[in-house]
Formats: sequence, C-alpha cells, structure tokens
Amino acid sequence: MPKKPDVKDYIRTIVDFPHEGIMFRDVTTLFEDPRGFRMAIDQMLHPYAGEQIDKVVGLEARGFILGGAIAHQLSVGFVPIRKKGKLPGTTISEEYKLEYGEAIVEIHDDAIKPGEKVLVVDDLLATGGTAGAGIKLIQRLGGDIISCAFIVDLPELGGRKLLEAQGMDVHVLCEFEGL
Amino acid sequence: MPKKPDVKDYIRTIVDFPHEGIMFRDVTTLFEDPRGFRMAIDQMLHPYAGEQIDKVVGLEARGFILGGAIAHQLSVGFVPIRKKGKLPGTTISEEYKLEYGEAIVEIHDDAIKPGEKVLVVDDLLATGGTAGAGIKLIQRLGGDIISCAFIVDLPELGGRKLLEAQGMDVHVLCEFEGL
Repeated sequence: MPKKPDVKDYIRTIVDFPHEGIMFRDVTTLFEDPRGFRMAIDQMLHPYAGEQIDKVVGLEARGFILGGAIAHQLSVGFVPIRKKGKLPGTTISEEYKLEYGEAIVEIHDDAIKPGEKVLVVDDLLATGGTAGAGIKLIQRLGGDIISCAFIVDLPELGGRKLLEAQGMDVHVLCEFEGL
Repeated sequence: MPKKPDVKDYIRTIVDFPHEGIMFRDVTTLFEDPRGFRMAIDQMLHPYAGEQIDKVVGLEARGFILGGAIAHQLSVGFVPIRKKGKLPGTTISEEYKLEYGEAIVEIHDDAIKPGEKVLVVDDLLATGGTAGAGIKLIQRLGGDIISCAFIVDLPELGGRKLLEAQGMDVHVLCEFEGL
C-alpha cells in the first residue's frame, strides 16, 4: 500500500534563514501545490466539523493565506491581526517579547463582537508569542476562541504549552524537531 | 425591489491614513462580513469561469487573504509575492518606484513553472507599482498571466492603464474617486 500523503512531505527546510542556526520550515512549497494546499485546509478544519464558528482570525502574514481559505470554506468572515501601524481603523494592541526586544500586534476594535466564536489560524507555532498576544486581543473584544490551528508545531520552543496554559485548545498538523 | 448588494457598500473609508490627505479604502470591513467576503470572492472569479488557471499569485499582505480563498476555491496552488527579505528560498526580485524612494518585491524562483496559467490578485489597484513589478516577476519565470483581479480601483492614480500598457487583462469590482 502506498504511503498516505502527509502535509509534512510538502514543507521544505531552509537552513540558516532568517539567520545562522535556524532551520526555517517553509510552507510556501505546501501552498503552491494544489493537492498539498487543499489537504492542509481540509485537515486544519477536520476537528471542527459541526462546530459553530463565526469568525476566522489570521495572523500576519502567512496566516492570511490560510485564514482567507478557511473563512471562505466556512462561509464566515475573516479578521486580520497585524503588526503595529498597518490597520487603518481604531485598534487595540498587545505587546509581546521577541528574542531581542518587543513587538506589537493590533486588531480593529470593532472586528469581533462579544460572544462570537473564533478560530485562530497561522502556519507555524514556535514560541507562541504572536499567537498569545493575538488571543489576548480577541478576548479583550469579548470573542470566544474555540481553538487555535497551525500547520507546524516546533515543540522545543514551547508555544503549544504556553497557549494551553492560556486555556486554549491547540490543533497542529505536524511537528518538527530542532529549532 | 431592494437594492442589489454591492461589495462597495461593505468597504469603509478612513480619512488621513496612513498620512494626511489620503482617503484609505479599508476592505477589512468587507472581509469580516460573511456575505461580503463570499460575494467578493465569487465576483472576482466570475469572469474566469471555465478558464484554465494553474496558480493564484497574491501580493503581500491583503492579497494573501483573497489569494488563499481563491486558490482554495479553484483547488489550485497559491504563490506569494513578498517584500524583500521575507521569502526564505532562492528568489528573483524587482524594484519599483514609490512616492518617495523605491521598494522591492520578490518571488521564489521555483514557484511558477514555464507556461503555467496565472491569476494575480490583490485588494486595491492604486498606482499599479506593486502589481506591475509582480507581473514582471511572474513573466521572468515563464508564467502566462491570464488576468489581474482587484476589488477596488482608484482610477485617478492610473494603475489600470499602466497594467493594460503591460498587456494585462484587468478586472475590478468597484472604483472610488479621489485619492
């Protein structure tokens, strides 16, 4: 029997990007393959079959590709969480720590209504810094996050544990060892 | 008879963003509405019914939201064109002029195969600088661009004429007067 297709097989690793010592897990080779992209979207949505989802939130920038596809598949609205200064309307913001320094993410303050059921999506879960800050933004607007879905988890970086400690349900399609 | 729903009604205008004198046409209010988002994707695809499309190319960053949804709808691959330094693999790049200074966009050099039929998507056509540079990247890889689709055109900025002068078929859902 042939090997079952796996999203992991479509992801390529770029050594030393964005700087030396990093093994960058590149999902663009997954997205550009018609079978791979459809499989990724189908598998990301599989755990939520029959669940109510009102909004899909995608994290800038690769989370926009997945979030657009998933929101369209579910026939629900899409909401972006962006880096500081990119959203034109009134926003709320959250700061989070990076390896060196801080970063800020923002959401439009009218993008989520209290009680709306929200699915958060991004391509990769590393330290969980961006996702953790995004979760706080959605919760401050009264959104009810049903789950956070990623294609790749890097377990050694601890993001999954961080999000689970925030009370999140986390769903990933595959894991890579090493940084 | 009630007024026919129009994507334009879902787009809000933010005055003086990102700087004084600019009327920013904000599509996030379109994307966050389930009916608006679905209508936008359906209308963007409508002219291409029955045409062969092999790849959808989205321009960073809002073009990723639309491109992800459209590629998924068509069951084809999605390819990002990004600002300099964001793509991890080997890239080719194009420089283009901004109001002040220059910008550079990149594509992975293996993302489009010669002869592939490509649809280019973004939310807004202004001066056409980014889209024009993106078109050159796709053509350098041998891609055959069947059309460029946008939600909004700002005709006073001349982007449509620029792309048509590059031999492009351009499809937009609505126009706004003023900058």
